[in-house]
Amino acid sequence: MAKSTTPKGFRDFNPLETSRRSYIFNTIEKIFQLYGYQAIETPAMENLSTLTGKYGEEGDKLLFKVLNSGDFLGKLSEGEIASGKSTKISDKIAEKGLRYDLTVPFARYVVEHFNEITFPFKRYQIQPVWRADRPQKGRYREFYQCDVDVIGSDSLLNEVELIQIICDVFNKLHIDITIKLNHRKVLLGIMEGIGEADKFNEITGIIDKLHKVGIDQVEKELIAKKLNAVAVEQLKSLLTLKNHSNKEKLKVLNRIAGNTKSGANGIEELMLILNSLESSGSKIPVDIDMALARGLNYYTGTIIEVIARDVKIGSICGGGRYDDLTGIFGLPDVSGVGVSFGADRIYDVLLELGQFPEDNMLATQLLFVNFGEKEATHCLPLIQAVRKAGISSELYPENVKLKKQMSYADKLHIPFVVMIGEDEIKTGLFTMKNMKSGEQQKLDLEGIINEINT
Amino acid sequence: MAKSTTPKGFRDFNPLETSRRSYIFNTIEKIFQLYGYQAIETPAMENLSTLTGKYGEEGDKLLFKVLNSGDFLGKLSEGEIASGKSTKISDKIAEKGLRYDLTVPFARYVVEHFNEITFPFKRYQIQPVWRADRPQKGRYREFYQCDVDVIGSDSLLNEVELIQIICDVFNKLHIDITIKLNHRKVLLGIMEGIGEADKFNEITGIIDKLHKVGIDQVEKELIAKKLNAVAVEQLKSLLTLKNHSNKEKLKVLNRIAGNTKSGANGIEELMLILNSLESSGSKIPVDIDMALARGLNYYTGTIIEVIARDVKIGSICGGGRYDDLTGIFGLPDVSGVGVSFGADRIYDVLLELGQFPEDNMLATQLLFVNFGEKEATHCLPLIQAVRKAGISSELYPENVKLKKQMSYADKLHIPFVVMIGEDEIKTGLFTMKNMKSGEQQKLDLEGIINEINT
Repeated sequence: MAKSTTPKGFRDFNPLETSRRSYIFNTIEKIFQLYGYQAIETPAMENLSTLTGKYGEEGDKLLFKVLNSGDFLGKLSEGEIASGKSTKISDKIAEKGLRYDLTVPFARYVVEHFNEITFPFKRYQIQPVWRADRPQKGRYREFYQCDVDVIGSDSLLNEVELIQIICDVFNKLHIDITIKLNHRKVLLGIMEGIGEADKFNEITGIIDKLHKVGIDQVEKELIAKKLNAVAVEQLKSLLTLKNHSNKEKLKVLNRIAGNTKSGANGIEELMLILNSLESSGSKIPVDIDMALARGLNYYTGTIIEVIARDVKIGSICGGGRYDDLTGIFGLPDVSGVGVSFGADRIYDVLLELGQFPEDNMLATQLLFVNFGEKEATHCLPLIQAVRKAGISSELYPENVKLKKQMSYADKLHIPFVVMIGEDEIKTGLFTMKNMKSGEQQKLDLEGIINEINT
Repeated sequence: MAKSTTPKGFRDFNPLETSRRSYIFNTIEKIFQLYGYQAIETPAMENLSTLTGKYGEEGDKLLFKVLNSGDFLGKLSEGEIASGKSTKISDKIAEKGLRYDLTVPFARYVVEHFNEITFPFKRYQIQPVWRADRPQKGRYREFYQCDVDVIGSDSLLNEVELIQIICDVFNKLHIDITIKLNHRKVLLGIMEGIGEADKFNEITGIIDKLHKVGIDQVEKELIAKKLNAVAVEQLKSLLTLKNHSNKEKLKVLNRIAGNTKSGANGIEELMLILNSLESSGSKIPVDIDMALARGLNYYTGTIIEVIARDVKIGSICGGGRYDDLTGIFGLPDVSGVGVSFGADRIYDVLLELGQFPEDNMLATQLLFVNFGEKEATHCLPLIQAVRKAGISSELYPENVKLKKQMSYADKLHIPFVVMIGEDEIKTGLFTMKNMKSGEQQKLDLEGIINEINT
């Protein structure tokens, strides 16, 4: 029969990769817990009515839809079938879709379980999401998000806390980062200040690409959108404030947007966040970035994005405040703020930086060589005793040549091998080999356990 | 807008449920690692060609199929569309399906990555699977399997090890179990011994239901299948050996099936497994059960099934040896053996037995009360210091009434609350309340850390 492979855009993870991924998940999860967040899980599938229309037109196209089971065509009229229009028919033959992100399912969760939840609700969620995107380097059709959100509180202390979490996570992972910070209201204030509020979406779309295309290209595109010349100059003066401190940037910003209600409000909030971060004592690499807009349009306040300083891979974490996420499910006026860590990109960054801990592989620590049925049987209670002492160990299951067994230990990076043959059974002293140093010594069971555990 | 809910047969997990599920996964995973198994992961989606035909006709119907993206109808001829036959069309508009179990993806993995794998390959895999089954109590459309397998070794020491793992897992979880053991070759030997080998599938199908329907019903069905009277009597004598020891059972079995090649071979293997388990020192509740057949027909040797003694819920773990699983993907003659733990049923058992550890909720340990902006700012560096000491803590984000903040701590079972008002800022001595005892004391930062960490 034909050889089967993983579908395009999907990946297997071998033991080394899986253990490295666990290292990332565990690091992130421990920090979420340290800050008092609790885990929830939602199902892989949601009703398509829950998902559709939440991610823009592009997003809708990227939803993986699950075919109804049974006679799915039975529900269609003959006319519909004959029409042969995929877009029309897909809604009727597929009622469920795979999770596209963790934010929309979380909003659905909050509304569905509203009465059981104690607010402010601090939750985290680490689960895979699926997107029918064209696969390319660094873009997968199945990838993990690690989301952390507070819902039911509009205090800026939540923003402060999330930024601290970001810092702690990347410190722990040894990744140098810049946390880019902006505010939707600041963006709105700027557009009002330069007299171009009606072109909000076009302008933010253009300036969001600044770091990719450069200021000259941005200027060209702004002019193409028929912005007035003063507006273009003012935007340029904001976007080229590269080597200025956050406070200097806010000053310039204040001149342009401070007179508008939105602008003043956004600037004040950014100031408060910066001041609180300063009071909290830790040095945090936050950088006000007026070009940051972020695509998803449910953000209404702070916007956050994290980039790795030493690896060019785009954003590895991002989020912001949304004032009305649950509104789409019938529960208005519940403010929330959250960020999402992209575990798969963080993996790529750690790999490129060579920052995975070396002893991360959770391999067997001790291999018992198999010299035959009698010897193997003698090993059975010994290996159980070793495991009871917390040492992960295994008995080679087959009585094959010693060389093959040693090569197995070698390939799996098993650090210790114990050989128990006829002589060793008689004396109760077993030959243990340190696979790194090559050193051998005769030890009893207790000696072996002590040697490995120290 | 309409309220959205989880699709039928799918579940959300709240923080308490999620942490209890983690307790199960972590317990199982630690033991897998202790025995030298390594984790892999495979994608949620496989090509349907990988999945179809591996689970019998019933299984094929329960596969969740994922609609091709884009113009999926474009690939169909007009005749196919007009025919309106769901079964015919689904193959063409859906090329991928969701994982139905972890065994078939594992077989696909072994073949795809054959050259990178060191054999014997001891792997575990803890991931969800999906089945379009009719939802009912204890049966979900999304559930987790925890699979542990050795592939590339036909040594019975692997069976012994898996049975030890089963024992360790349920010991650790405080669930009393019976491990039911049988052997495909023993079943074949019986059928040959009673002269009914041609009715193997029908007979095993009937006797597999013994514990559900009772011996009288089984007898009736056997007679209906036109078995000869002596054969029925012999089967009855085997199936009613309830209070006999395993060795006594094997003796009776030997009289009936010992003369056949398969029977003698199967009996010998079961003996070897039982003897090795005895040598390994631990008391293991294994029970030879001649009625055990297990549905999936890829098993060729030992068959294992675990039931909880005190909860009626069916099998909570099961598996067996398969001599040719990877053969379906073009790699013949690679023997393997494995078992799968059903985490969702184990959850239900632990719940019914009240055996979840009480302090399992990973809640915040310390809440800082928020008395206003000035006080909150003063708390910021303190809370960071507390977290640095490994204590999970949070600052209430809003300056609301003390009563509301205390009620928040209460509902989330936060054991300690610290109050830092104007006086406390002056003296550096903070009021800490033990929420269980109601006791309050004045402590400095170090005192608080010590109090909680002891």
